[in-house]
Amino acid sequence: MSALPILQNTYVALANGKIVAYGSMNDLPEKYHASTVLDASERFVFPSFVDSHTHLVFAASREEEFVMKIKGATYEQIAAKGGGILNSAKKLQQTSEDELFERSVKRAYEIMQLGTGAVEIKSGYGLTVQDELKMLRVARRIGVETPLTVRTTFLGAHAVPQNVTKEHYVEQVIQEMIPAVAEEKLADYVDVFCEQGFFTVEETERIVEQGKQHGLKPRIHANQLHRSGGVQVGVKTGALSVDHLENIGDEEIEMLKGSTVMPTALPGAAFFLGLPFPPARKMIEAGLPLAIASDYNPGSAPSGNMSLMLSLACIRMKLTPEEAINAATLNTAYALELGDSHGSISIGKVANVFITKPIPSVAFLPYAFGSNLIETVILNGKIVNTIS
Amino acid sequence: MSALPILQNTYVALANGKIVAYGSMNDLPEKYHASTVLDASERFVFPSFVDSHTHLVFAASREEEFVMKIKGATYEQIAAKGGGILNSAKKLQQTSEDELFERSVKRAYEIMQLGTGAVEIKSGYGLTVQDELKMLRVARRIGVETPLTVRTTFLGAHAVPQNVTKEHYVEQVIQEMIPAVAEEKLADYVDVFCEQGFFTVEETERIVEQGKQHGLKPRIHANQLHRSGGVQVGVKTGALSVDHLENIGDEEIEMLKGSTVMPTALPGAAFFLGLPFPPARKMIEAGLPLAIASDYNPGSAPSGNMSLMLSLACIRMKLTPEEAINAATLNTAYALELGDSHGSISIGKVANVFITKPIPSVAFLPYAFGSNLIETVILNGKIVNTIS
Repeated sequence: MSALPILQNTYVALANGKIVAYGSMNDLPEKYHASTVLDASERFVFPSFVDSHTHLVFAASREEEFVMKIKGATYEQIAAKGGGILNSAKKLQQTSEDELFERSVKRAYEIMQLGTGAVEIKSGYGLTVQDELKMLRVARRIGVETPLTVRTTFLGAHAVPQNVTKEHYVEQVIQEMIPAVAEEKLADYVDVFCEQGFFTVEETERIVEQGKQHGLKPRIHANQLHRSGGVQVGVKTGALSVDHLENIGDEEIEMLKGSTVMPTALPGAAFFLGLPFPPARKMIEAGLPLAIASDYNPGSAPSGNMSLMLSLACIRMKLTPEEAINAATLNTAYALELGDSHGSISIGKVANVFITKPIPSVAFLPYAFGSNLIETVILNGKIVNTIS
Repeated sequence: MSALPILQNTYVALANGKIVAYGSMNDLPEKYHASTVLDASERFVFPSFVDSHTHLVFAASREEEFVMKIKGATYEQIAAKGGGILNSAKKLQQTSEDELFERSVKRAYEIMQLGTGAVEIKSGYGLTVQDELKMLRVARRIGVETPLTVRTTFLGAHAVPQNVTKEHYVEQVIQEMIPAVAEEKLADYVDVFCEQGFFTVEETERIVEQGKQHGLKPRIHANQLHRSGGVQVGVKTGALSVDHLENIGDEEIEMLKGSTVMPTALPGAAFFLGLPFPPARKMIEAGLPLAIASDYNPGSAPSGNMSLMLSLACIRMKLTPEEAINAATLNTAYALELGDSHGSISIGKVANVFITKPIPSVAFLPYAFGSNLIETVILNGKIVNTIS
């Protein structure tokens, strides 16, 4: 979508947590006697961001690896010093469920203040049955105890834990973890890191099919570092989304054209790792939709700031501001099966919006890339934060 | 500097707008009975940023050009539609001095909240005698009416106005503008955009020498788009800094080694324009110091967020967090002749510091690239903002 409908001199009416009406201020019905009236003069009202790919439940940041990388350490050298996903797994395994919740819910409140209203949270730093369940319980609890709408994804196949063969671990994911996750109804989706050195296309397909058997629809970490076949297995298995896509070619684009899979770019990860960005213009010009999510995680994308993701999408992937906003709201909502309830200011949808500070245009939001331009956050029809 | 002194369990005492003491909490002298005590447990106290290169006095943002560029317009096409520096000049000329102050002081307050305590502000969107003076008066007024320490730079030679030959304009800069600016004592420095298509090395030298005659020390916009000779003329004329440096080679690095000129990178501009970044590691390894400033301006760097500049410096220029922090505090202070009063937490310096939110390490600040981690801003010993 290259043209977003932008209305001026407009009211939006919220009631019972829903968007109930909008229209010209000149036609504001007399019947509305709101208990709270917010003057959005000179401001814009945006639908809250829907962040369809995060790992925001984690035990600790990993800035020490960031410094090692700056100093020239390779991925292998960092891994040899206990870094990477296994570093996060070790710390998470040592953290109690309550403590993990306390640390993670702070990030949830931070992204709320930054304009996110719905978020997907993955497991994948547990890597044992009990720790994967612990992560997903914490993710579910964030959905219960905060105003965020939370969708959860089981990503046991994120890395192979130490002292276990991959074959053994894949069997554990399939035979033990997926049934246990489904039994407790802790996940909405199943995901696999389909990548050279992590999980093969065949392993991905087996895991995903087992997830589907247990009611978990697939989404795939695809083509971040290599042309891994992740897109193909995503299309084959009917994934809701294939995420990353830094390394896709004409073949993958062609496959996606005939599918309902949502291609999802994670510009924060490409930026932070210094990777090439996905060929977003080529994808859009091929007729594909595109979603944009943050990938918020401690290793490769330590930010859940969706306004900044818009800036990165515009600056580095040449999306127009309208395309980027659409990608981070309506398209991500679609990828989370929230298209009917989130992602736009539409009558009947959940009243998740934010009001900007005074700004001259919609394009100003991604343009002013270092400013926090969000003044008032409303989730489920209630003001949850006002930053002056 | 690759190792910043980082003290733990430390008190800092401020009095009469100055830093008067610091030391271990275990040795906190009994004589201190502070009227205000701030508990910085789990937090870090940083010296305020010194942003040594901005154009933050301007009349209007230019996000419409940002969108044109995304859609593929060239610099020439944008210029043909009235864009670029001349766009800013036209808008500024049409804006009253009071109105220009009102718009600009908001940006000054924004950067204060983002941790900046001292800032350089350039003219260069006036391009007539009266409008250049207007800009500089506004910049001086920001220094008077806000807690920011402000240094001002006359940059009449920023672009050639329409309907005037370059020869004529250079003469006007030299014969009329510099004497008028000096007469009103409106500028501390003189600057020239030494670049192909803008001002030549010879013109730069003539303008700068006239500035020096009137008490304005030089700083140069050098080597942004081409190997323009800007570094050489900066060294030759004894400039305080040469800024941009996206295009420098061994010759320029060698020249800088024997000089007192501060090489200054502007990572926000390189990022926003998609230019290569300066070869920062090569410069540091050659023994040069490096300063980092924001270049905050409406065309090529619409952000004054210095924390984000640190992130860009670490991610894109491979500076360590310590090198980046030093570059954005002590080195920029030096470049603004504020080395004795700003840029570090040292006894006798101005009490410009900020306290972070709870963070685990100094490196976390550039690592968490999308978060605003600044909680309390103190300028001249007074709390000027607390963000909860």
